[in-house]
Amino acid sequence: MLYNQKNSNFAIMNNMPSSSFHEIVMIGAGNLATHLSWAFTCAGHSIKGVYSRSLQSAEMLAKRNGRGCVATNKLQEILQADIYVIAVTDTALSQIISSWPEHCKGGVVLHTSGSVPMSLLKEVGGDYGVLYPLQTFSKQRKISFSDIPCFVEGNSPQTTDIIVNLANTISQTVHFLDSHRRKRLHLAAVFACNFVNHLYDLASELLKDENLDPQWLQPLIRETADKINSLSPRQAQTGPALRADKKIMTQHLGQLDEFPELQSIYKSLSNSIYNTFHGSYDKL
Amino acid sequence: MLYNQKNSNFAIMNNMPSSSFHEIVMIGAGNLATHLSWAFTCAGHSIKGVYSRSLQSAEMLAKRNGRGCVATNKLQEILQADIYVIAVTDTALSQIISSWPEHCKGGVVLHTSGSVPMSLLKEVGGDYGVLYPLQTFSKQRKISFSDIPCFVEGNSPQTTDIIVNLANTISQTVHFLDSHRRKRLHLAAVFACNFVNHLYDLASELLKDENLDPQWLQPLIRETADKINSLSPRQAQTGPALRADKKIMTQHLGQLDEFPELQSIYKSLSNSIYNTFHGSYDKL
Repeated sequence: MLYNQKNSNFAIMNNMPSSSFHEIVMIGAGNLATHLSWAFTCAGHSIKGVYSRSLQSAEMLAKRNGRGCVATNKLQEILQADIYVIAVTDTALSQIISSWPEHCKGGVVLHTSGSVPMSLLKEVGGDYGVLYPLQTFSKQRKISFSDIPCFVEGNSPQTTDIIVNLANTISQTVHFLDSHRRKRLHLAAVFACNFVNHLYDLASELLKDENLDPQWLQPLIRETADKINSLSPRQAQTGPALRADKKIMTQHLGQLDEFPELQSIYKSLSNSIYNTFHGSYDKL
Repeated sequence: MLYNQKNSNFAIMNNMPSSSFHEIVMIGAGNLATHLSWAFTCAGHSIKGVYSRSLQSAEMLAKRNGRGCVATNKLQEILQADIYVIAVTDTALSQIISSWPEHCKGGVVLHTSGSVPMSLLKEVGGDYGVLYPLQTFSKQRKISFSDIPCFVEGNSPQTTDIIVNLANTISQTVHFLDSHRRKRLHLAAVFACNFVNHLYDLASELLKDENLDPQWLQPLIRETADKINSLSPRQAQTGPALRADKKIMTQHLGQLDEFPELQSIYKSLSNSIYNTFHGSYDKL
């Protein structure tokens, strides 16, 4: 066994025998379900069915998964499979678990959420676990799963084995991670991805408002992301708050007088940078 | 003339005659001065001298610029040149301008700041202007200047011509931009780079605090930056605030109870994402 449940920082190597292809039913037809379906299909698994609250969405994804994949919007009508992958919002997840169909209790039920503890799945009555891929997904954008770190957990060593092997067929980086630490990872991802992307949006809006081209930011955005491959973010930091340039910071806040929300974001992030490098001071 | 001072969105093509190589003196020996020196030298210009308040820094950069480049920490002792490029912090800039040496009034004096108006240079007594490269620079990291958008402005059409031609020798993308709009561009860059990098830092700290590996975030960070090459940041947004998932947001705030500064950043950014997609609501 190449992984160690007790040492979650231990990478798990790909050691799946080639015969371990599974019959899978996808619960959900959104961004993540779509990307996972592509990845599973490419890896040789068979997606037998797709469930979604919207029949149209289920049919669209089932069609993409190829012949023989059955679409339904009735949970009680999903086909029996080895593995059920629930890739829906956290709110929808609870509803699905509470009405989990009796005839599906023989398979392994997985959820894909960063923030929901594995124990929530206890209710499904059979084996269960988690496969959390750390990435941001948009339907319009194809992604190679092999570089995406996947974090897994199972209700027993045997179930964990099954999930590890499944994850290894789609990703080169698979780690065991318990629910508590997965929650922390998910929170960090919100900072590093959702908030970062929103800052791109705010910067673009600031430019458009003056008829300037948001595309001009691209090389800067790329270098900011690339830089931390060779420097830590702490070493890579630049800008007025790092330099403790209060004159520029005050000028920036003045420029944001028309945009109180941006002003408040500017304050909280600049204060935090300042505190990181210079210790506490009178807030902006 | 391929550019137009009145239309700042008009890209300027490289039309510099090959004979326009300049003798340049660099004022400053920090990140930007170092990178600019490399770029100018590679483009065939001659860096005659380097000034820095610290003689050691000036000598280090002069050495890198090759034989014949003179280091000094006395502004009155800098050599005469065609072009003086001031690449120092905004605070140091005012001091340098106010003690600009009499014997250097024949050349063009440039500053490289995003936030300082060109008019501040009037005091130097000769021709002057701005060359603002939109990028984040760290000494430890080599960068190709050719992809960096440069924004220029001169005190007369003739001076603008000289700066445009100079900028064209190091960058493929040169735009005329007046001081007011350059200030806005600089502010947007603080959001898209300095704040973004700080969020990478906060995310890394959240992981280290639980003995998790910050490297796991790399594919997510890369995809978040790459995504907006094909989608707008607005289209690319994901996460709990976009989905109006208040349960997860409240849970995240609870996880940040020990980190009040991160809690405040979480609130201001989540509220802003929520407002962007769902309109105003009771704040977090």
